[in-house]
Amino acid sequence: MRFTSEQRFDDGVLEREFTLGDDIPGILWTPASATAASPARLILAGHPGGLPMMYPRLVARARHAAAEGYASASIELPWSGDRPRSADADEARAELRAAVRAGEPVSDDVVDRLVLPLVEQSVPEWRAALDDLLALPEICGPAGFAGGVIAIGVRLAAVEPRIAAAVLFAGSYVPRRMFEEARQVTIPLHVLLQWDDEGNDRQMALDLFDAFGSAEKTLQANMGGHTGVPQFAADNANRFFDRHLK
Amino acid sequence: MRFTSEQRFDDGVLEREFTLGDDIPGILWTPASATAASPARLILAGHPGGLPMMYPRLVARARHAAAEGYASASIELPWSGDRPRSADADEARAELRAAVRAGEPVSDDVVDRLVLPLVEQSVPEWRAALDDLLALPEICGPAGFAGGVIAIGVRLAAVEPRIAAAVLFAGSYVPRRMFEEARQVTIPLHVLLQWDDEGNDRQMALDLFDAFGSAEKTLQANMGGHTGVPQFAADNANRFFDRHLK
Repeated sequence: MRFTSEQRFDDGVLEREFTLGDDIPGILWTPASATAASPARLILAGHPGGLPMMYPRLVARARHAAAEGYASASIELPWSGDRPRSADADEARAELRAAVRAGEPVSDDVVDRLVLPLVEQSVPEWRAALDDLLALPEICGPAGFAGGVIAIGVRLAAVEPRIAAAVLFAGSYVPRRMFEEARQVTIPLHVLLQWDDEGNDRQMALDLFDAFGSAEKTLQANMGGHTGVPQFAADNANRFFDRHLK
Repeated sequence: MRFTSEQRFDDGVLEREFTLGDDIPGILWTPASATAASPARLILAGHPGGLPMMYPRLVARARHAAAEGYASASIELPWSGDRPRSADADEARAELRAAVRAGEPVSDDVVDRLVLPLVEQSVPEWRAALDDLLALPEICGPAGFAGGVIAIGVRLAAVEPRIAAAVLFAGSYVPRRMFEEARQVTIPLHVLLQWDDEGNDRQMALDLFDAFGSAEKTLQANMGGHTGVPQFAADNANRFFDRHLK
């Protein structure tokens, strides 16, 4: 991981862009309070892909979390943003969007072709980011995961022991075969669902929540559409991490 | 409303038992901070009936709310606790319990016979209690409703303009004909569902949440069984009231 730029905001939050491996862009935000003597817990900030487009929402979430003492980090997803495209992923995404626009059911095949390769490719990258981020003196584990793509969060929660709690945003489709992985998840979960998110499958989100093996799991459903997660939901998410990461 | 006893707890909360009308027992809890110069907002504390049995949980909820500055009050439900029984209600309740125990679906007829008379009888009583409670100098409106029986909360939220926000506990059955009333509800709602509550109909709770007309409504589902609502859910409920009653 090589840092490529840094800036400090007026709330004291330090933002550093980095490159992971050869060409994976990422951003790290640390609160002013994070030092080697008093390292901050880390939240991996998930998103649907496209860091430049997602930046305004990610930086808002990161500064909100930093106010509670958390560091946040995110990396670009495969085939998104400034990373090389995938014709297969583009095709599957176009088919999914066409089905949603037409009000037709999204086929399992399209979900599998879009999401399974993304999970397979990205999860090792997030774990490599975790290796490098937790090696920084101003950051310590355990870490949390917050956001989407929810299938990435499910896989990370199932396989990555350094992730102790996860806030999962149920805003994207999950391959049916990953429900079995959900049963293996045992860490505390806080699942956010936008009840009136027309680009999502509400019943799939409820079924997935039901499948998780965790003894402590909370589903919080709010109104406001896909991008309208209310501010109090972010507050609740921070308090969830306070209970499980601090 | 006549006060019949009072005691003060070591956290300063004043508990007063009262009788509403001729024979409806009730309890009022006010924080030490509640005075005529600085009256407390009121939360009507719903419950499934049987104040003496429910007392430990109600007083815990009331003291938790009092720590945030809220007064709480509850009255006995018709045909419960020390009030006269109803053979019809007893029979319908026995049939419902037998169906749940046998793992059979609970018929709409049983739900109607148990819940509709309860709503019809109790809601005017809660409104009468509100008349008297809001006339006390140390209490002011608007009020909230918190708890169950959820059908009572639905009716109150639909018809009682002095109730500005409600935390509804989805832990009991709702007559199908009340879904139309749910569509009339427009106040902010925070609906608590115990996901693994075997004495409840989860799908009915989800359908009811969907039916509410409120622009701001949140569903929070947790694990822990019917009586296992986690402490952080009570914290979230208090913060919900803070957003809408203060």
